[in-house]
Amino acid sequence: MTPTDPIATLATLIRCPSVTPAEGGALSALDALLTPLGFACTHVTSTEAGTPDIENLYARLGTEGPHLMFAGHTDVVPVGDAAAWTHGPFSADIADGQMYGRGAVDMKGGIACFAAAVARHIEKHGPPKGSISFLITGDEEGPAINGTVKLLEWAAAKGERWDACLVGEPTNPEHLGDMIKIGRRGSLSGTITVHGTQGHAAYPHLADSPVRGILQLTQALMDPPFDAGTADFQPSNLEVTTIDVGNPAVNVIPARATASFNIRFNDNWTADNLKAEIITRLERAAEDGVLRRGRPPVAYDVVWNERPSHVFLTRNNGLIASLSGAISVVTGREPKLSTTGGTSDARFIKDHCPVVEFGLVGQTMHMVDERVAVADLETLTAIYETFLERWFDNAAA
Amino acid sequence: MTPTDPIATLATLIRCPSVTPAEGGALSALDALLTPLGFACTHVTSTEAGTPDIENLYARLGTEGPHLMFAGHTDVVPVGDAAAWTHGPFSADIADGQMYGRGAVDMKGGIACFAAAVARHIEKHGPPKGSISFLITGDEEGPAINGTVKLLEWAAAKGERWDACLVGEPTNPEHLGDMIKIGRRGSLSGTITVHGTQGHAAYPHLADSPVRGILQLTQALMDPPFDAGTADFQPSNLEVTTIDVGNPAVNVIPARATASFNIRFNDNWTADNLKAEIITRLERAAEDGVLRRGRPPVAYDVVWNERPSHVFLTRNNGLIASLSGAISVVTGREPKLSTTGGTSDARFIKDHCPVVEFGLVGQTMHMVDERVAVADLETLTAIYETFLERWFDNAAA
Repeated sequence: MTPTDPIATLATLIRCPSVTPAEGGALSALDALLTPLGFACTHVTSTEAGTPDIENLYARLGTEGPHLMFAGHTDVVPVGDAAAWTHGPFSADIADGQMYGRGAVDMKGGIACFAAAVARHIEKHGPPKGSISFLITGDEEGPAINGTVKLLEWAAAKGERWDACLVGEPTNPEHLGDMIKIGRRGSLSGTITVHGTQGHAAYPHLADSPVRGILQLTQALMDPPFDAGTADFQPSNLEVTTIDVGNPAVNVIPARATASFNIRFNDNWTADNLKAEIITRLERAAEDGVLRRGRPPVAYDVVWNERPSHVFLTRNNGLIASLSGAISVVTGREPKLSTTGGTSDARFIKDHCPVVEFGLVGQTMHMVDERVAVADLETLTAIYETFLERWFDNAAA
Repeated sequence: MTPTDPIATLATLIRCPSVTPAEGGALSALDALLTPLGFACTHVTSTEAGTPDIENLYARLGTEGPHLMFAGHTDVVPVGDAAAWTHGPFSADIADGQMYGRGAVDMKGGIACFAAAVARHIEKHGPPKGSISFLITGDEEGPAINGTVKLLEWAAAKGERWDACLVGEPTNPEHLGDMIKIGRRGSLSGTITVHGTQGHAAYPHLADSPVRGILQLTQALMDPPFDAGTADFQPSNLEVTTIDVGNPAVNVIPARATASFNIRFNDNWTADNLKAEIITRLERAAEDGVLRRGRPPVAYDVVWNERPSHVFLTRNNGLIASLSGAISVVTGREPKLSTTGGTSDARFIKDHCPVVEFGLVGQTMHMVDERVAVADLETLTAIYETFLERWFDNAAA
């Protein structure tokens, strides 16, 4: 491989069938690329009972600060209907200026570009004025238990400290340069069970319909809205994702109803005070609701999903300005600083250092015929290279 | 058998294991009892593709009017946990003044008492001043397709006409004489399917949650109430009996949600104008609801269950007064004229003649240890005998 060429590197990585939890040769290929550049590579296998063992890679160049981390993953989602692909999902074929393959944009492409940017930086300027690390997991698309969380714990335990992190996930909706992610909403999920009393539909006064209860409680969760949005975030939004009773008999009032919900919340809230607000809404709705018609309060319980994702917002001007300026110089676009979308591994990294996310255009991620414009690989490499220069200059100033 | 003794007749009937759809010897036993009293008995086997063949019995004494029908069924519900019965469910054992057995109150007991009442009437007065018929089905506790409906059609087709009908179902909540049923609410059921657009819970604007839609529609069905009741009926009541989505993924907005509902409606409504009201409510709720937040109208469809049960109310003073007076004379109680509870085969008979319902105390019906107080059998026989005298006297007047 020529480390300065992102196209060759990406082709090598795509040809490694690293569908979660398989390493597929991808981390070894990255190791073989980074070691000659002077990186010290450590393969860290994380284990947890009940989950597959996962191989992860931590590679560091330099020993001094300032210390910049690039974070990402080489694992990819399954190919789906392999026969439906125009080009093989592990072929890295190029046609009409597009390279095809699972992971092309999510996110082997981002890794290939950052590695090429580092190689070019060293070629031009010698080793960086500080340290650069790659924190690459093989468990981002899976349960995410043996991936970024454990690799961060492992590195922090051996004394690693970082000043900033760039996550190379695909963040651009349409064009390279559209969007940097500077934060993410939090995510909290739970399941409500309402306990009623079974009975005949002709004698509702002898029964206690849990359907009335679940309607009342879920309605209270969705209305009124939790907030109207903040300066940096869109409004918090709760979706009831399922309601289930499973009663096949139309003349029977059932005994039990369940509903699950997921709320994406902004920086108006913490997971804890949001839980408290939800409990308050449920308690109030259980007590008085138009559907109860004088019946006693709804009997219910709530089970929270174990790990909420916490909301975060990065306010590090040096980091954001270095990246935003690099994008502007290379593409002529002024990237939007966004906090939209789902969660990412940045939610774990933000506890260690300021973190931003910028990578390729995400349109074909997780789809059949995932592909990347070859021209975008060259452009992203140029952006990353300019960012490296600006970030180290800024950190040294 | 001694036809004037309801206890002996009931014991014979209980010992016939006539769990729907089995005849179990019960109709043959009744035939053997009625034929010596002068009844012309016809066994009518009804069939319909996809349902078990059912044996029914039509027995008529006399050829002239006025013509009184006694309607009922010899089929019984399953015994449930047979080991949990204190006495065998087909034993007809008597202990502490109670006769045990499946069908003791629902409603072999009623049949035994009416047969005894007819036998006593003949013993005292000779043949009735008109006609008496037994219309007895073996399919009341099952699908009810090959039972009363077809037997009525068969009899009407061969020219049978009736002036009044007494159904011998257990109608008394606590004491013999508590309650006559003079009508029943109607029953209408349907299933709503809401069609949404699947998507990621983090991007609700790209999806269209059918859970929001189904909540909105079902809420509109349950509130406001359909009416506040009428002079003869309790308020109409709608229960949503199930809501189902079946979405296991908390980060996914599902594509589809279904709900079923059942409404028990009073004489404010016909099945047709009630359907129209429901459609109006659904249309309005689909258009504007707080949970939609500016989205287009909810896309949904409704499938109605094939056969609604129509509401009816009997206003035949001669029939009601004869029965009510007989109860009062024998028991000292003034029976309540009620329209509460579920549907019964009376809903089919009301298209042929005025119909009322009165039988034993229903407390143990469908339960383990179904049983009847032996004293109640004697009392009910006396009530039926007095009713026969009064009804024929009244009809002749």
